[in-house]
Amino acid sequence: MLKAYTSSLNLKSGHVDLSHGGGGRAMAQLIDDLFIKHFDNALLRQHNDQALFNVPAGRMVISTDGHVISPLFFPGGDIGSLAVHGTVNDVAMSGAKPLYLAAGFILEEGLPLADLERIVISMAAAAKACGTLIVTGDTKVVERGKGDGVFITTTGVGLVPDAVRISGDRAQAGHAILVSGTMGDHGVAIMAGRENLQFQTSIVSDSAALNGLVSDMVTAAPADIHCLRDPTRGGLATALNELAKQSGVGMLIDETCIPMKAEVKAACEILGLDPLYVANEGKLVCICSAHIAEQLLQVMRAHPLGRDAAIIGEVIDDPHGFVQMTTDFGGRRIVDWPVGEQLPRIC
Amino acid sequence: MLKAYTSSLNLKSGHVDLSHGGGGRAMAQLIDDLFIKHFDNALLRQHNDQALFNVPAGRMVISTDGHVISPLFFPGGDIGSLAVHGTVNDVAMSGAKPLYLAAGFILEEGLPLADLERIVISMAAAAKACGTLIVTGDTKVVERGKGDGVFITTTGVGLVPDAVRISGDRAQAGHAILVSGTMGDHGVAIMAGRENLQFQTSIVSDSAALNGLVSDMVTAAPADIHCLRDPTRGGLATALNELAKQSGVGMLIDETCIPMKAEVKAACEILGLDPLYVANEGKLVCICSAHIAEQLLQVMRAHPLGRDAAIIGEVIDDPHGFVQMTTDFGGRRIVDWPVGEQLPRIC
Repeated sequence: MLKAYTSSLNLKSGHVDLSHGGGGRAMAQLIDDLFIKHFDNALLRQHNDQALFNVPAGRMVISTDGHVISPLFFPGGDIGSLAVHGTVNDVAMSGAKPLYLAAGFILEEGLPLADLERIVISMAAAAKACGTLIVTGDTKVVERGKGDGVFITTTGVGLVPDAVRISGDRAQAGHAILVSGTMGDHGVAIMAGRENLQFQTSIVSDSAALNGLVSDMVTAAPADIHCLRDPTRGGLATALNELAKQSGVGMLIDETCIPMKAEVKAACEILGLDPLYVANEGKLVCICSAHIAEQLLQVMRAHPLGRDAAIIGEVIDDPHGFVQMTTDFGGRRIVDWPVGEQLPRIC
Repeated sequence: MLKAYTSSLNLKSGHVDLSHGGGGRAMAQLIDDLFIKHFDNALLRQHNDQALFNVPAGRMVISTDGHVISPLFFPGGDIGSLAVHGTVNDVAMSGAKPLYLAAGFILEEGLPLADLERIVISMAAAAKACGTLIVTGDTKVVERGKGDGVFITTTGVGLVPDAVRISGDRAQAGHAILVSGTMGDHGVAIMAGRENLQFQTSIVSDSAALNGLVSDMVTAAPADIHCLRDPTRGGLATALNELAKQSGVGMLIDETCIPMKAEVKAACEILGLDPLYVANEGKLVCICSAHIAEQLLQVMRAHPLGRDAAIIGEVIDDPHGFVQMTTDFGGRRIVDWPVGEQLPRIC
C-alpha cells in the first residue's frame, strides 16, 4: 500500500487539530501511525471502512458503551483500558466469548498527541490481554471547548456457547446471588483522582476484563447461571434493582456478606457516599440456581478476578420488585434505585 | 417487567441533566420512554446490556462511525438520520446487507429533551426505512461545556452475500469508476445551515441509506464489483485517493462526467470550496470490471438513489498512486489528498 504523507507524526509535542478529523492526509497518518500501528491486526489492515470476518452459525451478541470518564488517567487505569474492559464485560455478561471490538474516538482539538498515544497503547494492551481484536474504528475531532479531551465509544461482538441461557429476566425466587469481589473500588479511585478533591487513598480502580472469569463459570455451570451483570454506574444497588425489575422478583441481600475493602468503606464515609451505589469496572453479579451456588463460588475464587467472590443473598418473591438488605445491625432496609447522580463521568 | 419510576418524562420543556447518565431512575426512564419507545423491537426489549441474535455461518462485517455534525438539524436531515445512514452505508460498502445497529449517545447537560426526542424519532424512522433495527445502546451525559448537544456513535453489523468480494485493495488498471449521483450536496447544505454564514440555498443534504442500491448492484454483478466507498468527509477526491492508495493504482477521471448540481457548483465558487472535496452522505463510488460498467450503470439509474449515476473515469497503472483529472478546459491536473480541513464537523 502507498502512503499519503512523508513526515512523521509529532507524538512528543504535537496536538490534535481539526485536520485529524478531516479525512485527508493528517487523518490517514493518525490512523496509520497511531491506531493501526498499535492495534495491529489483519482485519484492521484491510483499511476498509468496515472489518470483515467469518462467523459460524450460532447466537451472537452486540454491545456498545460510550466512555467519557474524567480524568482520562486514573489510579489503576485510563480511558483506553476502561473502554476495552467496559465493552468486553458487557459482551461477556451474556456468557459470550468476546471476539471483536470497534472503537469510535471523539477527540477535542488541542488534545496532546502524547496523551492519545498513551491511551491507544493502553487500549491495545487491554485488548490483547483479554484475547480480543480492535478491528475497525472511526475518528472525529471537535473544536476546543466542544468536547473534553477524548471520548471513546467501543462496540463488541461475541459468540454465546450453545448451552448458555443468560438474561436479566431469568431470575426466580430461590436463586442465589453472588458477587465476584469487593465493591466500590473503581468509584473511590476515580474520586480520589479528581483534582478538585483533597483526598488521597491507595485504592486503585478494579478495571479489568471479566471474560476469562465468565468463561470458567459458564464452563462449570452452563445451564444454571441465569443472570450476569457488571455493577458499573450506580453500583451493586442499581444492578440488583435492574435485575429485579427485569425479572419481576425481589431480592434479599445480607450487608455482612458483601465484600468491601476497609479503605473503600472509610473513603465512602468521608465522602458521604453509599458504597452500594459506587461503580465497579471489574466485578460481576451472578444469579444462579441455589444448588450450584457453592460449587460456582469455588470456581470463581479459583480465578484471579474472583478471589474475593461471595454469596450475598437470594432472590425472593415480591410483586413490588424491591431489593432488601439485612443490615449490619440486624434490621432490614430497602436498597432503592439511585435517584440523582452521585458520581458523574465515572465511566 | 416492573417500572422504576412513576411520573412521566417532561419532553416538552425538560432538559438533559447529569442524572440521565447516572444509571438510576432518570436514566431508566429516558431509556424506556424515549429510546425503547421509538426504536421498539424485541431485541431492545430484552433490556440487557447487550442484544442477542442468531446468525447463519458466513462472512460478517462490523463498522462504526461517530457523528458530531453541527448544526444538529440541517436541510435534508439531522444527526439522528445521519447516524443511521452513515453506519448503514459503511456496512453496505462491503456489499453486505446491514442487519443490526448499536447506538451510543453522549449528551451534553442542558440539551432540550424535545430536541433529543426529535433526533430519536428521526433515527427510528431512518432505521425502519432501510430495514435495520437499533438493538442496543448506551447513554452518557457530560457537563455543560464538555460536549456539544449530542454526539452519536453508531455501529452496524451485516452479512456479506457469498459471491461478493469487495475491498478497497481490489482496483486494477482497466476497471471503470462510477459514482451514484451528484457530488457535494451534503457539505453545501450543512454550510448553508450554519448560523454564522449569510448564505441561503435550496440545496438539501443527500443523506440516505444506500443498502437498497447496493443490493441491486451486487445482485446484478456479484463478482465484478471490486470496490465500493461512500465519499463522505473529504469528498470524492479523498475516496478516490484512499482507493488508489489501498490498491496501489492510479486513477484518471473526467471532470465533465462528474454529476454536480449547478447550485452546488455555484455555492462552492462563492464559498471558495473545491466541490470534489465536499462531503456526500448518500452517494457511492464504485469500481467495477470495464465490461460490466454500462450494464451496472443502468441498474444504478433504475434505483431512485442512483438516478444521476455516471461513469466518471478509469483505473490506470501508476506507481505513484495519483488521481488525475481531465479538466473542463482539456488539461490534466492531479486531484491530491486534502491537507487541512475545509469543513469541520460535517458528519
